[in-house]
Amino acid sequence: MTQTPVDPAAQVASLVDAAGPRVPELLGRVEVLLREAAVEFGPTVGEPASATIAAGGKRLRPLLVLLAAGVGPADDDADPERDLDLVRAAASVELVHSATLVHDDVLDASPLRRGHPTVWATHGRAMATAVGDYLFARAFAELTATGSLEAVRILSRASSALAEGELLQRSDAWNIDVPVERYLHRCGLKTATLFESACALGALQGGAPDDVRQGLGAFGRRIGLAFQLLDDVLDVAGPPERTGKPIGTDLLDGTVTLPLIIARERDASLAAEDLRQVTTPEAAAEICGRIAATGALDEARAQALTMVAEAKDGLPDVGQRRVLELVADSVADRYS
Amino acid sequence: MTQTPVDPAAQVASLVDAAGPRVPELLGRVEVLLREAAVEFGPTVGEPASATIAAGGKRLRPLLVLLAAGVGPADDDADPERDLDLVRAAASVELVHSATLVHDDVLDASPLRRGHPTVWATHGRAMATAVGDYLFARAFAELTATGSLEAVRILSRASSALAEGELLQRSDAWNIDVPVERYLHRCGLKTATLFESACALGALQGGAPDDVRQGLGAFGRRIGLAFQLLDDVLDVAGPPERTGKPIGTDLLDGTVTLPLIIARERDASLAAEDLRQVTTPEAAAEICGRIAATGALDEARAQALTMVAEAKDGLPDVGQRRVLELVADSVADRYS
Repeated sequence: MTQTPVDPAAQVASLVDAAGPRVPELLGRVEVLLREAAVEFGPTVGEPASATIAAGGKRLRPLLVLLAAGVGPADDDADPERDLDLVRAAASVELVHSATLVHDDVLDASPLRRGHPTVWATHGRAMATAVGDYLFARAFAELTATGSLEAVRILSRASSALAEGELLQRSDAWNIDVPVERYLHRCGLKTATLFESACALGALQGGAPDDVRQGLGAFGRRIGLAFQLLDDVLDVAGPPERTGKPIGTDLLDGTVTLPLIIARERDASLAAEDLRQVTTPEAAAEICGRIAATGALDEARAQALTMVAEAKDGLPDVGQRRVLELVADSVADRYS
Repeated sequence: MTQTPVDPAAQVASLVDAAGPRVPELLGRVEVLLREAAVEFGPTVGEPASATIAAGGKRLRPLLVLLAAGVGPADDDADPERDLDLVRAAASVELVHSATLVHDDVLDASPLRRGHPTVWATHGRAMATAVGDYLFARAFAELTATGSLEAVRILSRASSALAEGELLQRSDAWNIDVPVERYLHRCGLKTATLFESACALGALQGGAPDDVRQGLGAFGRRIGLAFQLLDDVLDVAGPPERTGKPIGTDLLDGTVTLPLIIARERDASLAAEDLRQVTTPEAAAEICGRIAATGALDEARAQALTMVAEAKDGLPDVGQRRVLELVADSVADRYS
């Protein structure tokens, strides 16, 4: 399988265009709300929080909220009150996502995220931990303002799952024998639940019936899982100029992912590795090369693409179905 | 003023007794819920979370929820559904409190809390950060289960305030000229808002009218402020065998508190100190001695006791008014 790097920001921009003018308009309002949430408490606190939010990337989760809510292409389906609630729901999901990024950067002592200095790098561990806590609390404040207790329930479950996933990852660290089921469970907690919640929140705000809500949630969950699997492939496959980080950072953290899980069955020497001995970027890159040599990357990619196909197949027949399919494709295309 | 150390756990136990049999019964259920929340995900995650919750102390905040809700002494005012919601609300406040303790211990690299090893000490920085995030998310999950959006609103505001207070403290670190207003604002964010929220949540669940809710909230806020002021006095005054930590830990963190703010006006040599040079426990203890010599500790204590008196004076005439007064006294008595 050839690697054709794609610019993810440009890709999402084209998705947004396909959705018609109202989706980008509302995404613009999400952006304003995110900045307001960050700067509310003055430059000292607001500046690092803003930097994090700005570095947060493609706004894929807010986009899912809006599409699952059925925000259509026409101006005449605008309802100011519903729009405000949607913007809040979309922002709350991104705030939770940003909070986890800030905490992850603290834990990994990451100097850069998407080419920007992290809060940890510019303001230290203590500020970054508090900024993450603050973004997290703001997420609940925004969502509470929508007046939907069910929405808060969805986000609190997702937040529990995120923390649980992080705990699971840390407790499984360095264990090269981690079962594949446990790996998938962890991906579900760490990534898929927030994608699922974005779709479920959108569907809820859009007034979708129960079966459609469930269908959209399942779609989000599947593309979230695929997203994480492909992220894990990318960590092994690189190239660094595309990913913005060296090959093998997961290995250096002790995080065992699907490529290694597949590869250890094919190469007994990998199964026998003591991951605690892998302490340099060079050693990590060497293991990545051996993982790739087993064909495990293609196998892991294929599993992810199957999930994307299932996500598309199971999509309920909603107004923005075509654009949701494009979102699914964009998750797959990042790496193929 | 003489120092008569009081056992706070025994003191709270006597408060609970004064409240009649139903309050301890419900506090027992809060305890069960807290343990369940912690252990839900197996020993790896649950054990450190449990340890933190167990080390959390006196359950003053859950007690305030129950008293503000008007849980009376008689068995015949039990309403199973209301009781469950109250237990959840009380647990949610304690979960938020526990979450901040876990994160504080990470930031301060504290090996012990109330004589128990911290999650940071036993499981490391990464696990402790994730455990804090998890407890925080669980708080919202528990409170959402009460079905009250207003309750979630109260807790999300309190959580934002806690993080904001932490950020303010870090951004003001080492600044010996910090204005007293800013110090009090920080205490409000870091401590008083959660006490206020505990009372407001209880009043809400107990169905109190608006003016009583506000009155109970103001009571909580005042004793919370007094609690923090007296905590800051204790950090300077010790004795370590009473506080469980060396004198002057705030100074070593760069945290400027009321005793130093008062003392710097009375002793120009203190105002001229460069706090970044205070890097050893001995140096911190020496500064604490100079703060005490100015009489600043008595002045700070007097301000706290005034707040406690105002809290009692402003208490609405609710069923457990007498016990709430005892709670206020217990805050004052810890240190007098």
